[in-house]
Amino acid sequence: MIRASEDNEYYILTSPTILPRASGFLWNEKMMIQLNCRGYATSQFMQPEPAKYSHAPNLEAKSFMQPEQPYYAHHPGRFVYVKDETDGRIFSAPYEPVRSDADRYTFAVGKHRIVWNTESGGVAVNMSLSLPKEDAIELWRVKIKNVSTSKRSISVYPYFTVGYMSWMNQSGEYNERLQAIVCSSITPYQKVHEYDKIKRLKDQTYLLADRKPYAWETSQEAFEGEGGLARPSSIESESLGNGDARYEMPVAVLQYRLDLEPGEESEYRFLFGPAKDEDEIARIRAQYFTDANADGVDGFAQAEREYAEYVSEGRGCLEIHTPDADLDNFVNHWLPRQMYYHGKTNRLTTDPQTRNYLQDHMGMSYIDPGIARKSFLTALSQQNADGGMPDGILLHEEAELKYINQVPHADHNVWLPICISAYLDETNDYSLLDEKVPYADNGEPAAVSEHIDRAMHWLMKDRDERGLNYIHQGDWCDPMNMVGVRGKGVSGWLTIATAYAFNVWADICEAGGRKEASTTFRMAAEATNAVVNRYLWDGEWYARGITDDNVPFGVKEDKEGRIFINPQGWALLSGAADDEKKKKLIRSVEEQLETPYGVEKLAPSYTAMREDVGRVTQKHPGSAENGAVYNHAAAFYIFGLYAAEERDNAYRLLRKMIPGPGREDIVRRGQLPVFIPNYYRGAYRQFPRTAGRSSHLFNTGTAAWVYRCLIDGLFGLQGNPSGLRINPQLPAEWQEAAVKREFRGARMNIEMKRDTSVMTTEVYVNGEFIEAGVIHDLQPGVQYDVLVKLPRQ
Amino acid sequence: MIRASEDNEYYILTSPTILPRASGFLWNEKMMIQLNCRGYATSQFMQPEPAKYSHAPNLEAKSFMQPEQPYYAHHPGRFVYVKDETDGRIFSAPYEPVRSDADRYTFAVGKHRIVWNTESGGVAVNMSLSLPKEDAIELWRVKIKNVSTSKRSISVYPYFTVGYMSWMNQSGEYNERLQAIVCSSITPYQKVHEYDKIKRLKDQTYLLADRKPYAWETSQEAFEGEGGLARPSSIESESLGNGDARYEMPVAVLQYRLDLEPGEESEYRFLFGPAKDEDEIARIRAQYFTDANADGVDGFAQAEREYAEYVSEGRGCLEIHTPDADLDNFVNHWLPRQMYYHGKTNRLTTDPQTRNYLQDHMGMSYIDPGIARKSFLTALSQQNADGGMPDGILLHEEAELKYINQVPHADHNVWLPICISAYLDETNDYSLLDEKVPYADNGEPAAVSEHIDRAMHWLMKDRDERGLNYIHQGDWCDPMNMVGVRGKGVSGWLTIATAYAFNVWADICEAGGRKEASTTFRMAAEATNAVVNRYLWDGEWYARGITDDNVPFGVKEDKEGRIFINPQGWALLSGAADDEKKKKLIRSVEEQLETPYGVEKLAPSYTAMREDVGRVTQKHPGSAENGAVYNHAAAFYIFGLYAAEERDNAYRLLRKMIPGPGREDIVRRGQLPVFIPNYYRGAYRQFPRTAGRSSHLFNTGTAAWVYRCLIDGLFGLQGNPSGLRINPQLPAEWQEAAVKREFRGARMNIEMKRDTSVMTTEVYVNGEFIEAGVIHDLQPGVQYDVLVKLPRQ
Repeated sequence: MIRASEDNEYYILTSPTILPRASGFLWNEKMMIQLNCRGYATSQFMQPEPAKYSHAPNLEAKSFMQPEQPYYAHHPGRFVYVKDETDGRIFSAPYEPVRSDADRYTFAVGKHRIVWNTESGGVAVNMSLSLPKEDAIELWRVKIKNVSTSKRSISVYPYFTVGYMSWMNQSGEYNERLQAIVCSSITPYQKVHEYDKIKRLKDQTYLLADRKPYAWETSQEAFEGEGGLARPSSIESESLGNGDARYEMPVAVLQYRLDLEPGEESEYRFLFGPAKDEDEIARIRAQYFTDANADGVDGFAQAEREYAEYVSEGRGCLEIHTPDADLDNFVNHWLPRQMYYHGKTNRLTTDPQTRNYLQDHMGMSYIDPGIARKSFLTALSQQNADGGMPDGILLHEEAELKYINQVPHADHNVWLPICISAYLDETNDYSLLDEKVPYADNGEPAAVSEHIDRAMHWLMKDRDERGLNYIHQGDWCDPMNMVGVRGKGVSGWLTIATAYAFNVWADICEAGGRKEASTTFRMAAEATNAVVNRYLWDGEWYARGITDDNVPFGVKEDKEGRIFINPQGWALLSGAADDEKKKKLIRSVEEQLETPYGVEKLAPSYTAMREDVGRVTQKHPGSAENGAVYNHAAAFYIFGLYAAEERDNAYRLLRKMIPGPGREDIVRRGQLPVFIPNYYRGAYRQFPRTAGRSSHLFNTGTAAWVYRCLIDGLFGLQGNPSGLRINPQLPAEWQEAAVKREFRGARMNIEMKRDTSVMTTEVYVNGEFIEAGVIHDLQPGVQYDVLVKLPRQ
Repeated sequence: MIRASEDNEYYILTSPTILPRASGFLWNEKMMIQLNCRGYATSQFMQPEPAKYSHAPNLEAKSFMQPEQPYYAHHPGRFVYVKDETDGRIFSAPYEPVRSDADRYTFAVGKHRIVWNTESGGVAVNMSLSLPKEDAIELWRVKIKNVSTSKRSISVYPYFTVGYMSWMNQSGEYNERLQAIVCSSITPYQKVHEYDKIKRLKDQTYLLADRKPYAWETSQEAFEGEGGLARPSSIESESLGNGDARYEMPVAVLQYRLDLEPGEESEYRFLFGPAKDEDEIARIRAQYFTDANADGVDGFAQAEREYAEYVSEGRGCLEIHTPDADLDNFVNHWLPRQMYYHGKTNRLTTDPQTRNYLQDHMGMSYIDPGIARKSFLTALSQQNADGGMPDGILLHEEAELKYINQVPHADHNVWLPICISAYLDETNDYSLLDEKVPYADNGEPAAVSEHIDRAMHWLMKDRDERGLNYIHQGDWCDPMNMVGVRGKGVSGWLTIATAYAFNVWADICEAGGRKEASTTFRMAAEATNAVVNRYLWDGEWYARGITDDNVPFGVKEDKEGRIFINPQGWALLSGAADDEKKKKLIRSVEEQLETPYGVEKLAPSYTAMREDVGRVTQKHPGSAENGAVYNHAAAFYIFGLYAAEERDNAYRLLRKMIPGPGREDIVRRGQLPVFIPNYYRGAYRQFPRTAGRSSHLFNTGTAAWVYRCLIDGLFGLQGNPSGLRINPQLPAEWQEAAVKREFRGARMNIEMKRDTSVMTTEVYVNGEFIEAGVIHDLQPGVQYDVLVKLPRQ
């Protein structure tokens, strides 16, 4: 079974084999952990760069999170072996490594807790993980219950992988005083100046227990013996070997022996995480365990409660009740949580890409606008006086631009007005535009509005003689790094996005009383749209760009990469497409890009290198950039469809972002509907066998855009300087919907109903008809009952 | 059992569990593969930088070879599953992944072939690997034999891991035309200019079969199913699934079905390796397989023969018969092979460290002096006009100094005269010194002798006011990178080594008729030795150095790092130690550094950071630099003992480099005696449990030095400008030894015997007494019978 719990706090899977890669994730201010339904785990913490405390068994590349990452027998994980001391039978919870068939199994992904129940041969193991709010510590409860009718004598072995900590120095031992396994390592370095950094790293891993173990093992090899993970030799013995690990791969395994009467349950608590040294581990022990004994404060349970509160603060500003229960569950419970994760952790990087950072805080505008505001100011403080935004935003004094952020991308400026407009709609806080922020290069302070003016002027200048924007080595997330490497190639999408950015900024300038600036940018948008239509319209859709050699691509002559979604979606937003062009491009997308799992980013996927386009063509067909259902791009398109009032098209595609409804679709995606992944595998027409699979990667700008689609589009509850404009675009098949909307402190209870008596949407507040659907003069703290009458379709 | 084959071509292990990490390695001009006795494999090829074609199952760091590297269930390997089609019983050869107990098992490490025999339930699997001479291709033969008394119907599944090729693009499919599984990937890159390099890489992996398979599988996940590696679900079926892998982790598994009468055998051949594209795979197929059918040339067998010849060319210039049979086997068969590997492959790097490169070619002087000569000239062509040698020697036009070669080390110059002297002893080719080679920075050509003069003068200048050599960020292989980081700290070892280098160069200058230069360097050596004794003698041994803050270390006041082996061994060579000091330091080494597994590099091992010493103290106690039995340093010491005529001490320590004799010692080391590893785990007095374990890493300068110890020391058969000087230092317990020595084209048949009638060593050639033991006027192509009478001990 695959289902939501009744209180919608959990999403539950009842077999480890039908969605073998299904996972949930928890995060806090310092860490992230993704737990797979079979017990495998991927965890990272920040110090300040991402680091590991539970490692792979070989020397692994320290890298960004990978999509569709492989699991394998010795993948890092958290497991509990159980041995019946009477008959020697062994099983493991939750499923790996033994893979024994459980009599009962559930994997419940909660918002602030992930829980497994595994029952085998009359013994039930309940494992649950929570986190504290700020520390990089895993809080584990393991409950063992005798669910049989006879007394049971068993050994229980929590087995937490530590892995290949360092080729330079690794060891493990049981520390009696701390009642902990402590695994030590030293991060290798080669150059003297690196030592200052590495000596401060937390490169110990500990497993702290609240109860004294019967025995332990700290060497992976000694633990497994010839029996291997499926039947570790040391578990066959009466007692683990109490061994240390000296430059051997460490592991944290404890043994508890217990006798349980029928129905009797025993609970253990563990803390697992990184530390600098034993003193820190001792402090952690005192905070979470020992104090509980000393003065009665249960630090562990208190941390769990605080974490639940922390997560609950990440609720959105919408609560919906629609004919689509799965959508309701996802939007009310999981979508804001995913946005909150992005806004709180910035994807566990110290140098988030500028476009990601701005969009993640666009999402944060709906949850905690104060954080969004601060982040926009941080980003602008790293802008140069010529208006150019950097490729990444440095969040820590020691942070550097790494990896892809060293490759110049041309699009960062467009995101400023686009993301800030959502913040302004939500808060009406136009004072943001008057804030003074210095430029990064000359240190001179200027108002935010001046910053964004310059960003727009930068975009006006970075163009060829036709007025098309240069692509340089890439833009957004189609890393076509050879289109414009010689400085001539242009980006169709970026030119269109620039027109949209100009229009958005013109609106904001106008609302802020800067009439002249508004006119300037409005005219620039019109001129840009004209150029777009002159050079990029291909007859049925918009081209993706034009190369250094003046070859248009993403056009009908192309065998591969014939149509890209981004120019189409943004042309619906920028004003480039007139009604006829809208119709044509929407039909083209439907015919060539739409699949049962959503809209593909481009099609057909490239299967061979095209050297005038570059890197995207090196990706596997249907993966990430190369023709996946890339949800972020799909969300832009849906946002464009709502702008074009294409309500049914928009809803159909929006719905495909969430796995399900129905077991078949969820199984196909391979993922529980607890987050939107960055992509589903595409190339549906070329490689149908694998199409639809989830990347399982929850870092994506999609969440914020989907939320904006709900606010501005589907439920039509967008703010403006006058108040709240109500203009829902419910799909034709919906007869009604109820929405609770928090808006500028007011609580809106909104009922939407089809009504044969109306020809256009009519809005009533507390029974009173509202002109043009805009509710003015909303008071914080006040509740408003709103009725929206929608015409029949 | 652990034993040599009767013809000494193989070393044989008859159980996969007693030495679970035992391995053999094969290499050719392009690749290296280390096969573990259980089937795990580590392979690399050059293009030109080291690359993989069989990967780990996660994103792995591309790195140098690691000591004591961990194996785990999904570690790369080469395996054969066998299923009995009658009863469904499954086992795997050689041992992993199923780990079934075999009825018979042997792992035979040969010089040009590695062979497993695994027999289980009446079916014998013989797997053998050879390589071609120049291509990066594994040549596999798999023979299946029915050793039972009834007809057998079985399926055989060669399972070759391919692993996580790339997060960007990986796939696998069976190619009918090529009769091969072809797994494709694209190496990720981020910056445009990197593309030019990566597009030329061989990032396909193929498994070519000489017989059409019954079925195949190319997806790791589809292959394993829920059964996992221990009982892959797809093997449970009648036929593998013939599936492809699309951005799924690829694997190469074939299925053959065969019916075997009792005693009947069937052989399959496979080629496994990297390729650029299908065309290259087709060419490989044609060369190794198809031609066999077309014109009768068996390219596969021919390549095996050529490789056997290639390896046999790597024989040394010694063949010994002594009372120590294990030493004989190792010296006659395995030691020259290890030296040859180093000289031929330069450790599979494109930028070998200068000291390694020079020492590896010192070893090559005994095998192929032409290659050594060319390499010395290559190294000198990268010297600067100020005499300084670079940290690494670039062997390829695109090569760059990487990793540790970017950290300045102070010792590279000393190796020039020391390594070249062995070449001159062996060849008498003093014309080398007159070769003109340009300096790297100004391009001006100069004679080799001038180059080395300048190298020596560079060492004379790079000193403090006391006349001690600066250590900068390190020297040799004790990377104490903080001793002299502020430019003041000095190296005791390097100062001593410099005195030795001066003396060696003075000898060479003298032999080459440069009297004045000789005097200069001789005086410099004396002055240096005087300074050494003044500042570095600590009462019982020599200090390792003096820090930036003028703190001596490696001295009796130190709790850790109290004594280092290198200053002691080199003081025996440089002339610094007088007889009394020699006695004291030898006793100190014996008391503090000697262990059952050899001499430790330093003791006691550091257990905590000492910031005025640096990196060595970050290594795990007993590992590599920090207190291991580091064989390279031990070999220097033994060489020094022979120089001091400490024949019994020298032999005792020399003998400890080779695992065994006796099963107990081999098991302790965990390694077959087919190579000397770079270290055995040390810290014997601190962590006795793990002491003695082999690193399993065969890249080490030890081999060349051990050979030089045999030539110059133990058997005393060193060349000089006059001819061959015979001065054996057989250990007291040996009554006789016979040695065949190839020397400057002459073949020397040497018998050494104790003789009560002599008081000093007497040498007879063809019955005639030879003055001073130096045989003059040796003619190439002539055989000489030499009798050496040794006094009784």
